[in-house]
Amino acid sequence: MSTLVTGIGELVTNDPALGPGPLGIVEDAAVVVDGGRVAWVGTAARAPAADARLDVAGRAVVPGFVDSHTHLVFAGDRAAEFTARAAGVPYDGGGILDTVRATRAAGDSALRARLRARLAEMRAQGTTTVEIKSGYGLTTAEEARALRLAGEVTEETTFLGAHAVPPEFAGRTHEYVDLVTGAMLTACAPHARWIDVFCEPASPHAFDGDAARAVMAAGARAGLGLRVHAGQLAPGPGALLAVELGAASADHCTYLTDADVAALAEGETVATLLPGVEFSTRHPYPDARRLLDAGVTVALATDCNPGTSYTSSMPFCVALGVRELRMTPAEAVWAATAGGARALRRDDVGRLGPGARADLTVLDAPSFVHLAYRPGVPLARALDLPE
Amino acid sequence: MSTLVTGIGELVTNDPALGPGPLGIVEDAAVVVDGGRVAWVGTAARAPAADARLDVAGRAVVPGFVDSHTHLVFAGDRAAEFTARAAGVPYDGGGILDTVRATRAAGDSALRARLRARLAEMRAQGTTTVEIKSGYGLTTAEEARALRLAGEVTEETTFLGAHAVPPEFAGRTHEYVDLVTGAMLTACAPHARWIDVFCEPASPHAFDGDAARAVMAAGARAGLGLRVHAGQLAPGPGALLAVELGAASADHCTYLTDADVAALAEGETVATLLPGVEFSTRHPYPDARRLLDAGVTVALATDCNPGTSYTSSMPFCVALGVRELRMTPAEAVWAATAGGARALRRDDVGRLGPGARADLTVLDAPSFVHLAYRPGVPLARALDLPE
Ligand SMILES: [Zn+2]
Ligand SMILES: [Zn+2]
Repeated sequence: MSTLVTGIGELVTNDPALGPGPLGIVEDAAVVVDGGRVAWVGTAARAPAADARLDVAGRAVVPGFVDSHTHLVFAGDRAAEFTARAAGVPYDGGGILDTVRATRAAGDSALRARLRARLAEMRAQGTTTVEIKSGYGLTTAEEARALRLAGEVTEETTFLGAHAVPPEFAGRTHEYVDLVTGAMLTACAPHARWIDVFCEPASPHAFDGDAARAVMAAGARAGLGLRVHAGQLAPGPGALLAVELGAASADHCTYLTDADVAALAEGETVATLLPGVEFSTRHPYPDARRLLDAGVTVALATDCNPGTSYTSSMPFCVALGVRELRMTPAEAVWAATAGGARALRRDDVGRLGPGARADLTVLDAPSFVHLAYRPGVPLARALDLPE
Repeated sequence: MSTLVTGIGELVTNDPALGPGPLGIVEDAAVVVDGGRVAWVGTAARAPAADARLDVAGRAVVPGFVDSHTHLVFAGDRAAEFTARAAGVPYDGGGILDTVRATRAAGDSALRARLRARLAEMRAQGTTTVEIKSGYGLTTAEEARALRLAGEVTEETTFLGAHAVPPEFAGRTHEYVDLVTGAMLTACAPHARWIDVFCEPASPHAFDGDAARAVMAAGARAGLGLRVHAGQLAPGPGALLAVELGAASADHCTYLTDADVAALAEGETVATLLPGVEFSTRHPYPDARRLLDAGVTVALATDCNPGTSYTSSMPFCVALGVRELRMTPAEAVWAATAGGARALRRDDVGRLGPGARADLTVLDAPSFVHLAYRPGVPLARALDLPE
């Protein structure tokens, strides 16, 4: 059944062929959706007929947000750690192991219920594509379980056995990397599209450049696409490694050298910025302006996780992108939609042109600018269309 | 009809007699509501019977937010000014006049519809008491109209004729102050509980200490309570004046001298911080820690207005209070509830003890901490109870 969505005061298509600027804006627009795909886009006055009709009364519509970096499979929370950090205790990556303990102890149905609740919370805020990482299991069976659960709700599953060195392997990082690149990878690869590694030599809980290279190389041999947590706490080898190995995305990028920025600008790797982390940890924010001015493709994502960024709100990340990362509202909205799609090497989401998935996010506002102009206000929701 | 609200995982009462700490927290709690008031508070196991029963399934409940500083009666928006500011254009208070033009041109029904939409948006985010200022009319008839409209939806109406010098009086501030303290006050006082003045000698559009004193003195003679916009852009005479004249609140307090802080600590004036403004204007944030450590009573409010803070979200202000103003989560939640009530000299709101208004705000979270821990996520909503 086809549906005509009309009365769109401002439509962000992210397709420069459809309207001005990188956002490809069409005013007084309409979209025809058919079979879950966009069939037609244009001005409302020229819209063709359709089986059903939905009027959004002058609201703005943007492509559904693409949240390309989350850690949604977990149990417990870390509100006490958050309160301590608010009082001045610094973050060093160690709290991950608290969540590992809680997640290992949780049954499938409890994990599944919380995962689905978080996805519903995201959809209610306009997010329609979500990448989900494992990484709170850190055993072969637990990592595979997390990916199976994630695979029930998204195609964008990421094996992150190399999230932290688990307590059983304390002081034996090499042996843990052997497990991650051996039996764990064999068990997890069938359930994952991507592999990721927390490359942060400065953290005693994470992995250095050699370990990260070993993990990514093994993942690539197993047919997985590559992602890296790079430069969250200090400059490190992650960004250069990402570009060298052709990773889809280097994430965090809070600390980058000039050589890192130059490499990202030359290569095929998206820089995915996660400002919810810096909001929560009180670290300095990444500098999107520096990256954009160098020609790097930038994405925004939530990093939704119970330790360092328990926000699920892409609009909040857009607002931080403008306030703290020196993006324009248009750059921030592009990064949260098309940028996320690039970071997942997808061309069917993050845009609203013919052939794209019919992921329309409607705003209780006349313009995408309001996502930054009205911070904290729940303006965005994914539009439910008749089947 | 009485209603038992039960299954409250964590209840913030703001009544130290009911539980530990300034928040007076009761765990596994229940509240009985009768005739729009709290009739009983305690642990769920000891709850008395009631006519109806509502189970909130382990969620946290806090007193409805008291947003003690808003400018909700306006037409138009200033998204273009916001976009320019994101690109580096500084804020000097001049944009107010753009909103004055749009508001004067709007009919009653259009203004009323937008006002009610904003209030509904606030209630959906957990706010149950809202102060509303005039100040976008700046003529006798227009200011009285704004207060009549505000009075349809709140008891907390504030006459802010001295919001900006209107274009008709450019260069003749003294004459405008004569109007504000004369015919305009006479027409507006019957519709207002409070009078306020934008005391900011550094802004060419606002009022100096002498003008502010004249406005407040005239308001007091007309029976109005006093409030002041003080120290938003630079240190100024507003805070000392507020304490000297016994104002209920000095608002903004971004720039304070040590003498200001000492006076606020001694006096009866609440310091109301509006961090949404600094988020939007990129000015430095006020320092709540300095005020709290000195013993000043602190409130948080949105300052919801189309120029400098178009957020309506008290949870967002709580999150900024923790991230940027150096408050603990408990201090920030107290400031957004009990603090707002003090700033309005109300003891029937901002707390959930027997006799208080039955303004329960429920969180999709197990603890009030999540308001800061999960920034941007729409966790809070005002609970609708059977009549
Ligand atoms: Zn992450
Ligand atoms: Zn104000």
